[in-house]
Amino acid sequence: MTTRRERANAIRALAMDGVQAANSGHPGMPMGMADIAEVLWGDFLHHNPSNPHWINRDRFVLSNGHGSMLQYALLHLSGYDLPISELKHFRQLNSRTPGHPEWHITPGIETTTGPLGQGLANSVGFALAEKLLAEQFNRPGHDIIDHHTYVFVGDGCLMEGISHEVASLAGTWKLGKLVAVYDDNGISIDGEVHEWFTDDTQKRFEAYGWNVVMGDDGKPVDGHDADAIKKALGRATSQNEKPSLVICKTIIGFGSPNKEGKEASHGAALGVDEIKLTREKLGWNYGPFEIPKEIYDAWDAKKAGGEAEKAWNDKFAAYEKAHPDLAADLKRRVAGELPANWQETAKAFVARMQSEGPAVASRKASQMSLDAFGPVLPELLGGSADLAPSNLTIWKGARSVTGPVGNYVHYGVREFGMSAIANGLALHGGFIPYDATFLTFSDYARNAVRMSALIPAHVIHVYTHDSIGLGEDGPTHQPVEHLGSLRLIPNNRVWRPADAVESAVAWKVAIERKVVTHDKHATGGPSCLVFSRQTLKHNARTDEQVANIEKGGYVLVEPDNFSEKNAKSAVIVATGSEVGLAVEAAASLNSNGYAVRVVSMPCTEAFDAQPVEYREGVLPSWCRARVAVEAASVDFWAKYVGLDGKTIGMTTYGASAPIEKLYEHFGITTTAVIDAVKSVVR
Amino acid sequence: MTTRRERANAIRALAMDGVQAANSGHPGMPMGMADIAEVLWGDFLHHNPSNPHWINRDRFVLSNGHGSMLQYALLHLSGYDLPISELKHFRQLNSRTPGHPEWHITPGIETTTGPLGQGLANSVGFALAEKLLAEQFNRPGHDIIDHHTYVFVGDGCLMEGISHEVASLAGTWKLGKLVAVYDDNGISIDGEVHEWFTDDTQKRFEAYGWNVVMGDDGKPVDGHDADAIKKALGRATSQNEKPSLVICKTIIGFGSPNKEGKEASHGAALGVDEIKLTREKLGWNYGPFEIPKEIYDAWDAKKAGGEAEKAWNDKFAAYEKAHPDLAADLKRRVAGELPANWQETAKAFVARMQSEGPAVASRKASQMSLDAFGPVLPELLGGSADLAPSNLTIWKGARSVTGPVGNYVHYGVREFGMSAIANGLALHGGFIPYDATFLTFSDYARNAVRMSALIPAHVIHVYTHDSIGLGEDGPTHQPVEHLGSLRLIPNNRVWRPADAVESAVAWKVAIERKVVTHDKHATGGPSCLVFSRQTLKHNARTDEQVANIEKGGYVLVEPDNFSEKNAKSAVIVATGSEVGLAVEAAASLNSNGYAVRVVSMPCTEAFDAQPVEYREGVLPSWCRARVAVEAASVDFWAKYVGLDGKTIGMTTYGASAPIEKLYEHFGITTTAVIDAVKSVVR
Repeated sequence: MTTRRERANAIRALAMDGVQAANSGHPGMPMGMADIAEVLWGDFLHHNPSNPHWINRDRFVLSNGHGSMLQYALLHLSGYDLPISELKHFRQLNSRTPGHPEWHITPGIETTTGPLGQGLANSVGFALAEKLLAEQFNRPGHDIIDHHTYVFVGDGCLMEGISHEVASLAGTWKLGKLVAVYDDNGISIDGEVHEWFTDDTQKRFEAYGWNVVMGDDGKPVDGHDADAIKKALGRATSQNEKPSLVICKTIIGFGSPNKEGKEASHGAALGVDEIKLTREKLGWNYGPFEIPKEIYDAWDAKKAGGEAEKAWNDKFAAYEKAHPDLAADLKRRVAGELPANWQETAKAFVARMQSEGPAVASRKASQMSLDAFGPVLPELLGGSADLAPSNLTIWKGARSVTGPVGNYVHYGVREFGMSAIANGLALHGGFIPYDATFLTFSDYARNAVRMSALIPAHVIHVYTHDSIGLGEDGPTHQPVEHLGSLRLIPNNRVWRPADAVESAVAWKVAIERKVVTHDKHATGGPSCLVFSRQTLKHNARTDEQVANIEKGGYVLVEPDNFSEKNAKSAVIVATGSEVGLAVEAAASLNSNGYAVRVVSMPCTEAFDAQPVEYREGVLPSWCRARVAVEAASVDFWAKYVGLDGKTIGMTTYGASAPIEKLYEHFGITTTAVIDAVKSVVR
Repeated sequence: MTTRRERANAIRALAMDGVQAANSGHPGMPMGMADIAEVLWGDFLHHNPSNPHWINRDRFVLSNGHGSMLQYALLHLSGYDLPISELKHFRQLNSRTPGHPEWHITPGIETTTGPLGQGLANSVGFALAEKLLAEQFNRPGHDIIDHHTYVFVGDGCLMEGISHEVASLAGTWKLGKLVAVYDDNGISIDGEVHEWFTDDTQKRFEAYGWNVVMGDDGKPVDGHDADAIKKALGRATSQNEKPSLVICKTIIGFGSPNKEGKEASHGAALGVDEIKLTREKLGWNYGPFEIPKEIYDAWDAKKAGGEAEKAWNDKFAAYEKAHPDLAADLKRRVAGELPANWQETAKAFVARMQSEGPAVASRKASQMSLDAFGPVLPELLGGSADLAPSNLTIWKGARSVTGPVGNYVHYGVREFGMSAIANGLALHGGFIPYDATFLTFSDYARNAVRMSALIPAHVIHVYTHDSIGLGEDGPTHQPVEHLGSLRLIPNNRVWRPADAVESAVAWKVAIERKVVTHDKHATGGPSCLVFSRQTLKHNARTDEQVANIEKGGYVLVEPDNFSEKNAKSAVIVATGSEVGLAVEAAASLNSNGYAVRVVSMPCTEAFDAQPVEYREGVLPSWCRARVAVEAASVDFWAKYVGLDGKTIGMTTYGASAPIEKLYEHFGITTTAVIDAVKSVVR
């Protein structure tokens, strides 16, 4: 028989050894939380190491992701496909044990963590997804979706503002199957936290409507007393009315005679000598990375996990028999497959937009797309950070998630929390979330947008009011650098449609951008759909042009005489609301002897991903007479127009005035485009 | 005699009329908070409309900045230089009444607000500045610095995560002269907030250690009962131990018969008919923008303000007599002037770095700069978001602000709050704040960094761990797009120094980037100083080269045979840690018959601001054989290398591994630079 402490010490030893081998990493947190993790994984967590994708597994998230060795040790010990060789290569190139947990690299990692507070937010997304899927699919006698979400959080997570946003929402939504365990170790990188973190965290979370679990004495649970931990987790899981916060007092670096309880154990290898002393103090008489068989056996969760999944599979078979359509739809959604009628629906709507040609603001076109696509996509889970009437993100079938069987989230004014929750919703499976705010306030959510692309998660971020075109609200609300900044995020797709047709295509492509994982790699991911407040003209297109929109950039206007031999040839590249200016300018120039092609470039990333032949066909190398026009930072466009081209756009902040005055004031006009073309044509 | 309600109705009328004239804006909040504002400005606020710059004035901040007409009405009525003609041109081009309050445009506006929650954060900065200046300058019998900071916050501000970060710090710092008034009107843009905002805000702020002020009945103060408001503000200001939150229940759009209490009054003009009905209901029998003389007289604060400032001036004269050195230093700091020995100190240190040539990480060079400059700059007020030992932002003279006469802030893990507080510290006067985190986590503070540049505020943001060069922490911590993204923010200056000399110059220029306001315009502002974790080599330079660093880009390596006539000529542009690669590559190429110039470009914005002759001298138009190398998004560099050049850098996220492996893995090597140059030379 092994003791709980011995099993926990296996985590401590692996954490020490992994960090020491890498000479890099964070041993303190895994050593401090080992006892809690042992009780949670041993006595509470329902999971199957042989199938990390079982949809009804409990989710476990390490929001304080710097303690990654804790999670790698747990996955390894309990039987996931993470051999000891990977732990020996902690933080090395191409290992499955990167510095911080990464979703697409390691089996059993539920989300990528490290940026503090976001793991907690993802967990709120997991718990909301569970609740909504259960509402949508469970039937009397068939609790098909019924699992917990557990998350470890540190002082850093709780200092971050995002913890406020998402804890508030979790309380409002009464996410009773969410259990957060707070590692209250009193230490952060600058030292003892009492100088910069004096919150009464118990009271704070009670103010959010949480079930805060303390020890029997009303003080934080002793995080090194397995019985106390078990009792506390029992209190958390024995009710489903409120999210729970279990506050545990722990000693960072527990077991290290000279470094425990100190910042010294937080972010660096303990050192060979100290590890030796720690082994002695813990009574751990095994070599580096050596785990005795009885410890492995005690940790092994494959058998219990296999049985648990088997029992669920039997339940699901009964469900499938009783509710075949529901079961089929759940399977489809969990697999991330779109409905059979999706392509037909989407293509028909795009074609209808092209033939009807409505002249509307693209935010309105976005809402029309939602009205068209929403009815066939029950997985679509919308929301906005308190800007629904401005973002136009509520469609006819949208119902608040606070009511029965909802599909729309009123996130309140919480952009960062919203987008990080959306990442969790997407990772859970069963949903394609979209969220929304003004483009400028994508700033507030910036790192969650980055995480959407890095994880990658199939999330759609809707950003309206996309330029000075929003008018009188002025420079605090007018985006300038945001389009370029969002495009610089690797694996992010930014769409800025020029009219209702391009808006519909942007939604279609974003919905189809499914995430698929391969060995340590993944494809697919998020899209940012950027829409105007102001009305945009419709553009005429051939079928081929309509088909080319998906390629991110295509020839929208082509004069007969555009050719390498014609010295009056030029290209104007434009996006969104400025495509109208480009078309006008080209018409004027072409009626005056020029040969000006207009390229609409709604998504530069999609365009860049096309074969060189296609790109060359749109932007031929021989043509250096190029002008880009976009009511945003001009610097981004140098990539397409080069040193010989010109850019029309913004170089400063905007201003408060009606839209027409602003375009004139900042020189973003047809005349300016015409002059620019004339100046670059030889 | 006028009544309080009549005086408040003047605000309501101006707000209705201003928004109606613009047909754009937010009447609901000014109408809801008018009674509170009237009591605060009438009975509590110490200010002098004739001198908005009086250093000991109380600060008033409108964190819910969409209610800008409230503040314009207050400034106009109380006698600031904001004539009625400006209110009639609300939200029009070149008016002094932009859509949201802007610091550099309107006299009496203390900070630019609109992005929710940041006004509250700025206010915490104001209150901290007041407390620290008082500690540094007040002497027994001479309370020279002694003022309150008042801030109005709405539901939106309190939902935002930043409110958590800064309220927590204000509580920890015991900012007793900070008074926040919460406009608890139960309405946000999506409708009645109870579906998405159910916090017990009283309890939440008590958890932060605040003095929460409710009405006599323990419920929120009636925000339309002047006596109750006065009593509540009295409770807030009669103690100096804790920051106060006065929770007031108000009716949005108060007085509008059909729209009060509804979202309909929030963000659009009430309409001519409804305004007529509102005038009737309020008993306000005056035309649009018409304020009767007795109301103006009752509001006029010029006389009282002049007397208050006069009394303070007398106090200051006595202080100056008793403590001439202190008084002179305070005057200097408030004026934003650097010390007389600054230039000498700074130049000597730069020269010393060039002659001594230490090979250190630039984060270490940054700390050396602080050690050199700190002793002559008592206004330098540092800090880090719990990364002091990593950012190396603590210098020898740094002392925590929680102790006596501190100059260093342990912000905890609160990046957004930190940078928005720094904006407030800078706007208060008397300090040059710097803050710090890892470059990747500039994302968390992103909109506050934008606000630093938009306001503009003289803030220095220090970002270390600036690329994959940070190594094993992996892609969640490795910036890729951040350099380009920060450079896209208008009026932001991003410095990425190549060695200790450039690091010293970057600090020098950032410290000298004083903000100066002109009529509705401002110059100066923030800098982002971006430093490496890894060691960087020293570069040899002539005196002229050292002098040119300040220009943002300069020729670091120049072969004799670099010329238009030599077809083997090429330019490598590099920044920071990649300058070393560029120098090595050039040496290799030049010994093999090439003529490769190396341009070090620590600050593209500073370079772009140079006269064309200088820029042409560094990057001559004739030379299209250009290669840029930076361990970051390559797209940004197209601006300098064009369609014929090449870029070496990152196109994906990083990975977890030791630094040498990563540079090799991602192809950022001397060999890659050499190959790129060869491929672009004709």
